[in-house]
Amino acid sequence: MELFHSRQSYLYTPLEELSFISIDTETTGLYPDKGDKICEIAAVLFHQKRKHFEPLGFFWYLINPLRSIPEETSQIHGITDEIIKYSPSFTDIIPSFLEFINNSILAAYNSDFDMYFINKELQNNGSEALSNPTIDVLKLARGFLQLSKYSLENVALNLNISFPQGLMKHGALGDAITNGKVFCTIITQLQSMGYIYLMDILKLLGEKRFEHQEMVIKITDAIFREKKLRIRYLSLQRSISDRLVLPKKIEERNKEYFLIAYCYVKNEERTFALNRILSWEIIG
Amino acid sequence: MELFHSRQSYLYTPLEELSFISIDTETTGLYPDKGDKICEIAAVLFHQKRKHFEPLGFFWYLINPLRSIPEETSQIHGITDEIIKYSPSFTDIIPSFLEFINNSILAAYNSDFDMYFINKELQNNGSEALSNPTIDVLKLARGFLQLSKYSLENVALNLNISFPQGLMKHGALGDAITNGKVFCTIITQLQSMGYIYLMDILKLLGEKRFEHQEMVIKITDAIFREKKLRIRYLSLQRSISDRLVLPKKIEERNKEYFLIAYCYVKNEERTFALNRILSWEIIG
Repeated sequence: MELFHSRQSYLYTPLEELSFISIDTETTGLYPDKGDKICEIAAVLFHQKRKHFEPLGFFWYLINPLRSIPEETSQIHGITDEIIKYSPSFTDIIPSFLEFINNSILAAYNSDFDMYFINKELQNNGSEALSNPTIDVLKLARGFLQLSKYSLENVALNLNISFPQGLMKHGALGDAITNGKVFCTIITQLQSMGYIYLMDILKLLGEKRFEHQEMVIKITDAIFREKKLRIRYLSLQRSISDRLVLPKKIEERNKEYFLIAYCYVKNEERTFALNRILSWEIIG
Repeated sequence: MELFHSRQSYLYTPLEELSFISIDTETTGLYPDKGDKICEIAAVLFHQKRKHFEPLGFFWYLINPLRSIPEETSQIHGITDEIIKYSPSFTDIIPSFLEFINNSILAAYNSDFDMYFINKELQNNGSEALSNPTIDVLKLARGFLQLSKYSLENVALNLNISFPQGLMKHGALGDAITNGKVFCTIITQLQSMGYIYLMDILKLLGEKRFEHQEMVIKITDAIFREKKLRIRYLSLQRSISDRLVLPKKIEERNKEYFLIAYCYVKNEERTFALNRILSWEIIG
């Protein structure tokens, strides 16, 4: 069995062959830029064809965030300083986490949140941000299900998916398992509506970011590392030019993505539409 | 936190600082040499000081054994051909499994069985056999608890340890979690009896093999690979000689370990007591 998909071809993965890893984290708070950290992580392997969408494997850790967990967040996820006292740190688990997810397609519920935390921890440890294709199951649910509330719990309830019981009921593992089952269930519904490839779903969702996902992730990483980019750009006037730029940020405007960067050719800050960057490389 | 212990010093790990990984496998049958394979594996991280001995992390996979599972073994562990149809093979999971266990101390219930299967799979894939220090919790239970039956279930029941419920109730994950809790509980009892180091337990168990465990594992691996050894040997007559030998097997006689090997110095098969091998290396 081929466990992993090459990055180039993931958009054309047939839905009926899809295997992916569902990810969830629990954290000390909402703001990684203000020092919040991951205190639990789960990664669960699914295959779309597996009966009842039961998981085929998982990786789970309580993580010592090397800081105290505020009482108000402990009340949400139940993880206290006492619980993670003897746990490894995120640094300790990076090698086995990266081996586990390898180059799999990832799925998370409100994935920007988890990915931002995970990538921040990776970068703080000198590792690169993940460039795995990542699907936001919350966005999929919003796009395809008519519900009044889109909490994972409510979405699962409406799809007749029960939360795992026992040790896995609470926290990252239970949520990652439920998220994976929700994703499998939505995919199955879409297959019955004639959707064939992963790309079909993403296109319909208007997720232009997916077309540029690897680019967005790698440039975000370059911004973090203060690295320059060499880009070949097609202007609105249809002229092609090579630019050396220092990337500042990536912005979404009306579902189109733009790179804001200091341009060393024009010696000023310029805005580049990602879909008109013909080729690009990170320098140094 | 120091997650892993160096191999040299593991015997002197203070029991109160012990962290270890509990391992369990389910297989297609009892005989790896007749083609039986692993179809489920779980590895669970414990720390002796953790409240209620709850796990701190785990790694779990259903594994496609790339052969059919006999109905009689399916009835034991509940794993059928259908269940593992979309699972990765053992080959697929080796990198993440090895990263997860790293150089941790391992504990398994009737560990020879699991280790033989795991090492066979590793060797079939061109990897080395594990040389992690490995504790057989069944032997510990037999040595320290007075019971009529030493099944994991009965031992756990007698120590007031309940099996995990839900998804983890059956199979390798539930058993690995329970085995880890049994080990933690026995260690705690031994600590109250004045035992301080892991070595104290092993010595009392008469487990001479532990002193030579790394040697036994590595030489077993050399036998499998048909590699020669260079040894410095102290004879019963107290003379020291350097020998080049082709190892044939390792035998236990009255809890002492012996290497049977073809000796290129004497040009015949000889028997060497492991505790009189002063130094050794595998050639090539």
